[in-house]
Amino acid sequence: MDYEHYFAKRIADLKSEGRYRVFADLERQCGRFPVALNHRDDGIHEVVVWCSNDYLGMGQHPEVLAAAKEAVDRCGAGAGGTRNISGTNHYHVLLEQEIADWNAKESALLFTSGYVANQTTLSTLGATIPGCVIFSDELNHNSMIEGIRHSRAAKHVFRHNDPESLAEALSAYPKETPKLVAFESVYSMDGDIAPIKEMCDVAEAHNAMTFIDEVHAAGMYGAEGSGVAERDGQRDRLTIIQATLAKAIGVVGGYIAGSKSMVDYVRSFGPGFIFSSSLPPMVAAAARASIQVLRRTPEIRTRHQERAATCKARLKAQGIPVMDSVSHIVPVMVGNAALCKQASDLLLKKHHIYVQPINYPTVPVGTERLRITPTPLHTDEMMDHLVKSVVAVWDELDLHKVHVKAAE
Amino acid sequence: MDYEHYFAKRIADLKSEGRYRVFADLERQCGRFPVALNHRDDGIHEVVVWCSNDYLGMGQHPEVLAAAKEAVDRCGAGAGGTRNISGTNHYHVLLEQEIADWNAKESALLFTSGYVANQTTLSTLGATIPGCVIFSDELNHNSMIEGIRHSRAAKHVFRHNDPESLAEALSAYPKETPKLVAFESVYSMDGDIAPIKEMCDVAEAHNAMTFIDEVHAAGMYGAEGSGVAERDGQRDRLTIIQATLAKAIGVVGGYIAGSKSMVDYVRSFGPGFIFSSSLPPMVAAAARASIQVLRRTPEIRTRHQERAATCKARLKAQGIPVMDSVSHIVPVMVGNAALCKQASDLLLKKHHIYVQPINYPTVPVGTERLRITPTPLHTDEMMDHLVKSVVAVWDELDLHKVHVKAAE
Repeated sequence: MDYEHYFAKRIADLKSEGRYRVFADLERQCGRFPVALNHRDDGIHEVVVWCSNDYLGMGQHPEVLAAAKEAVDRCGAGAGGTRNISGTNHYHVLLEQEIADWNAKESALLFTSGYVANQTTLSTLGATIPGCVIFSDELNHNSMIEGIRHSRAAKHVFRHNDPESLAEALSAYPKETPKLVAFESVYSMDGDIAPIKEMCDVAEAHNAMTFIDEVHAAGMYGAEGSGVAERDGQRDRLTIIQATLAKAIGVVGGYIAGSKSMVDYVRSFGPGFIFSSSLPPMVAAAARASIQVLRRTPEIRTRHQERAATCKARLKAQGIPVMDSVSHIVPVMVGNAALCKQASDLLLKKHHIYVQPINYPTVPVGTERLRITPTPLHTDEMMDHLVKSVVAVWDELDLHKVHVKAAE
Repeated sequence: MDYEHYFAKRIADLKSEGRYRVFADLERQCGRFPVALNHRDDGIHEVVVWCSNDYLGMGQHPEVLAAAKEAVDRCGAGAGGTRNISGTNHYHVLLEQEIADWNAKESALLFTSGYVANQTTLSTLGATIPGCVIFSDELNHNSMIEGIRHSRAAKHVFRHNDPESLAEALSAYPKETPKLVAFESVYSMDGDIAPIKEMCDVAEAHNAMTFIDEVHAAGMYGAEGSGVAERDGQRDRLTIIQATLAKAIGVVGGYIAGSKSMVDYVRSFGPGFIFSSSLPPMVAAAARASIQVLRRTPEIRTRHQERAATCKARLKAQGIPVMDSVSHIVPVMVGNAALCKQASDLLLKKHHIYVQPINYPTVPVGTERLRITPTPLHTDEMMDHLVKSVVAVWDELDLHKVHVKAAE
């Protein structure tokens, strides 16, 4: 076999299908979020970022930056090992305490990413609890799917956000069979939110553990911002709350929170935890500072929701096909990979607006979309410019519009 | 099933087997490496760390710290997204160029950790190249084993560092079958080094790709420090060179380097890459500065090897059972989990020396050991104290000594 030829051929196929991904080379501008510099072949251009997962701009909050730099001065750039072999720094201990307290759980555990938190936790539980069966929402994130698959536990996929479908799947097993129900709170590509209470009702009735991914909710929902489970008063019913430090927290890393025994179990048996070097002290310090700011600043969440609602309403008023979303995500359907890429390119090059096209495998083929994420730091002027630009691109490419009723 | 009871029971079992891991809570002291503060129940104690994987102390190098802080000031604390969705920062682009150039390869790709680099690359290649067969050294790291297992490709394990065993396994397949040989350069628990040239000879004869893990070598071997493959003049024969930014580089993260097509292929199809938020700019900037320092500072590698050789010789001269190691790793055999933990505890509490006990699953049961990692920053005085303390602990616990010949 000619390996080079094979790799080149598969890349060429991606290009011909319009699915080849070109990463926008950005230089974030501290203090100017959501403005960034975009390095392109024809030079460096200033753009407004409208697709950041730094949902609240916390990656540039002065207290977060001060904490990062203080940790660099105090402890240096890295942790120096795995958690077990010289790599547990006092900042990790403090951050795990903060996360546990924030989530009203006994204990918490850090991972190098949200991806690794999902994959390691689900694969470890599924593989090591004898006879465990995992029930997974059909739209779960790749990191959950890979973790479940790697566990080699029996798996049932239930209909998206559908407690009845979950109940049906659970009913096939006796009460004593170990069971784990895995789902997300906010589904980030559609912006819908799980009925957590109803899911917990069903899971409890069948004596199943529950695993919730709050990756796109942590920092943004609930009085102190720990997620939708907090907002809905369901945290004590969930066995495992998982989330990331890389989105609304603004840094990097992932975590789980739960009972002391469960967390100690994953800490003791999870390969992706045991065998990874730990996060640098500067990362742990920055994330902790960010959580502390978020806990005491509900107004940032109010402003965030207002910006998202306003953005949806203004785009809809112009006939732009904003998908149904009850969260801070503003997905706009295009439905074709090549057109979606063209729309994104036009926004970037003609209007200095950066919104990455979302294509397969992140979303199903034929549902390619622009995914807009307004933050509390996007001004009215920026939104005026966004709406005008999106409408101009829609007209230029003759994309599908939705009929706007006069009453709206 | 009572889940809490199950978790608690398994933890109790670990404790009774002497395998329960207690993490040392350290506070690294910038500018004083390898000295750190150890937070314990009875207070905070100053200790000398003798088991850091920050092998060269680069995590505290002034240029590395300055680069991290400059990136914080410039770009903030986080990258703000996955590489595809707003998370590619210019620092990532520069770091990938630096890594490719350092390894004399066309291209490089960053991952959130070395663990994820191994797991994602091996699972992606094994799962997506039709009919691919993977040949794996029997002592490969968990991250490689998990990646290979997750790929569900056919797998053959060959005897450790044995080209003949590899040749035998490869011979079972026709030349046209896609094959991938995966091994490490430095095996970190024993300190031995792979015969890279001979492995490449065999792999080439059977038209197999080669994947080398240089995690415990990058920064430390070769004229510019990119690894043992550089030292041995074998880099251009290896299809994929993988390593970490968390050990000798002193920060966090992982990478692969290779041909443009191969790297683009893993970039395009590797779930653990596609779906993870990217490393913060401050991490990428610090890692790049560290590599730049290491490339132009061969004397740090000379000093490192001298410290390791001196440490081995001095311990051996006292009859301490230092295992055969041709690298910078100084493993000392204890052979029993409980005694190993006791030795480590005594060193810490009585002698203010931190050397973590290494137990199962990191090493096989019955080969529990202390793994000492001298760095260029350990002074003669520190080494005097280490040797004296290890001997005192060996005497106190009546551990096995090796007969020292008069001639030595």
